[in-house]
Amino acid sequence: MDILKIADKTFTSRLFTGTGKFGSSRLMQEAILASESELVTVALKRVDVENESDDMLQHLKTTSVNLLPNTSGVRTAKEAVFAAKLAREALQTNWIKLEIHPDPKYLLPDPIETLKAAEALVKLGFVVMPYIHADPVLCKRLEAVGVQCVMPLGAPIGSNKGIKTLDFLEIIIEQSNVPVIVDAGIGAPSHAAYAMELGADAVLVNTAIAVSQNPKQMGIAFKKAVEAGRMAYKAKLAPIKRQAEASSPLTSFLNL
Amino acid sequence: MDILKIADKTFTSRLFTGTGKFGSSRLMQEAILASESELVTVALKRVDVENESDDMLQHLKTTSVNLLPNTSGVRTAKEAVFAAKLAREALQTNWIKLEIHPDPKYLLPDPIETLKAAEALVKLGFVVMPYIHADPVLCKRLEAVGVQCVMPLGAPIGSNKGIKTLDFLEIIIEQSNVPVIVDAGIGAPSHAAYAMELGADAVLVNTAIAVSQNPKQMGIAFKKAVEAGRMAYKAKLAPIKRQAEASSPLTSFLNL
Amino acid sequence: MDILKIADKTFTSRLFTGTGKFGSSRLMQEAILASESELVTVALKRVDVENESDDMLQHLKTTSVNLLPNTSGVRTAKEAVFAAKLAREALQTNWIKLEIHPDPKYLLPDPIETLKAAEALVKLGFVVMPYIHADPVLCKRLEAVGVQCVMPLGAPIGSNKGIKTLDFLEIIIEQSNVPVIVDAGIGAPSHAAYAMELGADAVLVNTAIAVSQNPKQMGIAFKKAVEAGRMAYKAKLAPIKRQAEASSPLTSFLNL
Amino acid sequence: MDILKIADKTFTSRLFTGTGKFGSSRLMQEAILASESELVTVALKRVDVENESDDMLQHLKTTSVNLLPNTSGVRTAKEAVFAAKLAREALQTNWIKLEIHPDPKYLLPDPIETLKAAEALVKLGFVVMPYIHADPVLCKRLEAVGVQCVMPLGAPIGSNKGIKTLDFLEIIIEQSNVPVIVDAGIGAPSHAAYAMELGADAVLVNTAIAVSQNPKQMGIAFKKAVEAGRMAYKAKLAPIKRQAEASSPLTSFLNL
Repeated sequence: MDILKIADKTFTSRLFTGTGKFGSSRLMQEAILASESELVTVALKRVDVENESDDMLQHLKTTSVNLLPNTSGVRTAKEAVFAAKLAREALQTNWIKLEIHPDPKYLLPDPIETLKAAEALVKLGFVVMPYIHADPVLCKRLEAVGVQCVMPLGAPIGSNKGIKTLDFLEIIIEQSNVPVIVDAGIGAPSHAAYAMELGADAVLVNTAIAVSQNPKQMGIAFKKAVEAGRMAYKAKLAPIKRQAEASSPLTSFLNL
Repeated sequence: MDILKIADKTFTSRLFTGTGKFGSSRLMQEAILASESELVTVALKRVDVENESDDMLQHLKTTSVNLLPNTSGVRTAKEAVFAAKLAREALQTNWIKLEIHPDPKYLLPDPIETLKAAEALVKLGFVVMPYIHADPVLCKRLEAVGVQCVMPLGAPIGSNKGIKTLDFLEIIIEQSNVPVIVDAGIGAPSHAAYAMELGADAVLVNTAIAVSQNPKQMGIAFKKAVEAGRMAYKAKLAPIKRQAEASSPLTSFLNL
Repeated sequence: MDILKIADKTFTSRLFTGTGKFGSSRLMQEAILASESELVTVALKRVDVENESDDMLQHLKTTSVNLLPNTSGVRTAKEAVFAAKLAREALQTNWIKLEIHPDPKYLLPDPIETLKAAEALVKLGFVVMPYIHADPVLCKRLEAVGVQCVMPLGAPIGSNKGIKTLDFLEIIIEQSNVPVIVDAGIGAPSHAAYAMELGADAVLVNTAIAVSQNPKQMGIAFKKAVEAGRMAYKAKLAPIKRQAEASSPLTSFLNL
Repeated sequence: MDILKIADKTFTSRLFTGTGKFGSSRLMQEAILASESELVTVALKRVDVENESDDMLQHLKTTSVNLLPNTSGVRTAKEAVFAAKLAREALQTNWIKLEIHPDPKYLLPDPIETLKAAEALVKLGFVVMPYIHADPVLCKRLEAVGVQCVMPLGAPIGSNKGIKTLDFLEIIIEQSNVPVIVDAGIGAPSHAAYAMELGADAVLVNTAIAVSQNPKQMGIAFKKAVEAGRMAYKAKLAPIKRQAEASSPLTSFLNL
């Protein structure tokens, strides 16, 4: 079977999702369940440590999905480490999606702080999943300090633009010894399928599902697209050709 | 249910396939069955009218798929009409995929001969499915003479380049009163999903399945991708944005 | 010298321009002169046969540019032939830019009527320059009836989208025995340079110059871009490579 | 006049070039002079400090171009600082193009080492021009430590792929307070024009000129393209539109 392994966990679904931007907790739960995603990011802000009745968390806790806290909102390595520790307490998990984006407009990740935080968090025993620019050299450096995967972006978060970093994702996938998960920018099932066809190990999709007019149906659509892209990758795509080739043999009956 | 209707037939699958280029008749049958395609093109050349033991046809006749003869190989309207009549005799169907491509290198369709043949074939009672360039004006003219759908190309046949006619497909889909089926050039499941997300009614895929290293798996991959694209189209995609938007709300906990 | 020849005329500039959409006749004249264009389209509507003081024409007649009347506004071959004759009378030229676009929204050309009109106009002694979709088969058919060039579109008129028909322009350029002039859709100097790098013989630019904030400067910009693209085509572009290659040799001084 | 200022120097040309990969020193000199480039990178390896008769340097020293030594070949910040000091000695300039690419296959820059080296070199009084991935956050961090410009890549060095980092270059240009010079990947004049149209302050081109069949002509082509793109940027491009707009007014003469 086609299993994805990250640290001590295995996944049969290669579609990771998020919990932001949904119209309601119920819509979120429905969409995530329909997507069959097994790993779901959650912003620390949403985790109300004190409040047992926190709506969103309760919805997710009744399912079998793994919660992956993220550090969204921090601007430095130091803040990220602090946030990761808080998240570990609150959610009882040493997995952390590392996001450090000082810029409030485009939310693009900071390569310097991310590497620094990753190194510190690995030493503290975290399973670190860093969200980064599609920078092949940075990916190798993160791998060298012990992250369990790399999460390069396809396009700015929430832009829905798709795979705008193709030339660099190809290099990252070629060179990486840890799973490559394309994160951010995926706005349509075709984008997700494309990332998987390139050889990505998984994708993370949030906005495109959450703000669709029908999040549940969109969750299913992404599930199918990710499966399609993965199957195509394994079955090998036909090569691109400049000259056409008839798929129907040219009939010569008229000359008979 | 989401049914596609063309002339007197209804389809639950929006993936049409072809029979060319497969390594063997068995591989072809397996892939087509796995794809759950309900309409399959077949070149007249492959139909051996005399020979009851024709291998390929026997493989397909045992299934529930509809055979759609094509006129591949003809170069003029006159030849196309002749071929269509032969096909009707041989396969006992008045459906015809009209393909007229005089150029042996790129196999691009001839707009003039195609319109002429379409008009004649409609008058002869055929259900005409014309393969054409992604030319919005030609599509409207074909519609005016009574074709049952239009089949604009995404890229040259067998090129596997994907949807290279985007700007024109969008116009065709916007203006058409008959189903729009994207034909030729689709080389990966992501391409098929993309065409469906744009609002195409179906896609036709042949080479990409047939020459894959694993046609059966690729057939399934395309089936999933077409379903994904169609579901996404109906659930409405999130809009593309220039500025990023956080899917995780910015945590303010550090300022508390 | 690098001369373009069409019918009996030679051109040193490969930038053709148009007269529509300018803020004033003075701005138009300035921009066209600055662009050094030698062939300028003019809509028949603008030509006031009776009125000797017609402003726009007077501005252009004082220059050395050749006026190229177009049939913009006609919807059939018959109307096109009628318009061409009127234009010949009014402007004393047998050159005609053939444009037949029945659709008022996207102004895309009609392949059937265009071929029909082209054939008739060639027989009437016109130098026919047909504006068409980037349809390689149609280009060859037009060539066969005697047009003096083909003018495939890059994108819908006035869209400024650039070269959206790349895969088909490449085939047209490869196969054509008459000059290929990319018309419509060119919205920036980089688009014009790109068309020329592909091997187009000339480009026609109107909207992008006319609606710029500074038409004169934009006219110069397009002139330079067309020259750049043409020179690059002749000097041969470096090939695209997947793997990087250092343009600076890797210094080994540190190992010495 | 449209002057580019970096540190204490002003430039009338916005085309920077390089000295690698030319067939001969004579071809290099011819091409660079023809391009009218005023800033030319040179790899330290090529600078033979001891040898007064060094061919390449002699060719360039007789011209008025500014030489810009680069640190190509170094893999760490420490090596880069060492190389920069050597270069300062050899060429009597405190300008340095900072390139740190540990990966020998794709030569992509290392963001961590580059920032570290930039900070050290600025403190040592260098005018630092860092070659980097098109990473908007990294650009702002480099700006914060005092670099005089940023040089984000369009595509991997020597790939000739063009502007593959569009979405990120746009953000970099929007946010930068220092000149943005697009470096690496520019393979055709149309690419250079496009970068300038986006608002880049300059471009650096080497491979595309050096390995052309006619480097001198290609140098001129790039010069024109850069000027065209810059002029278009200043004159403001026409907006991209979805619906077509006639540049020729629809003639109504037929209805009269």
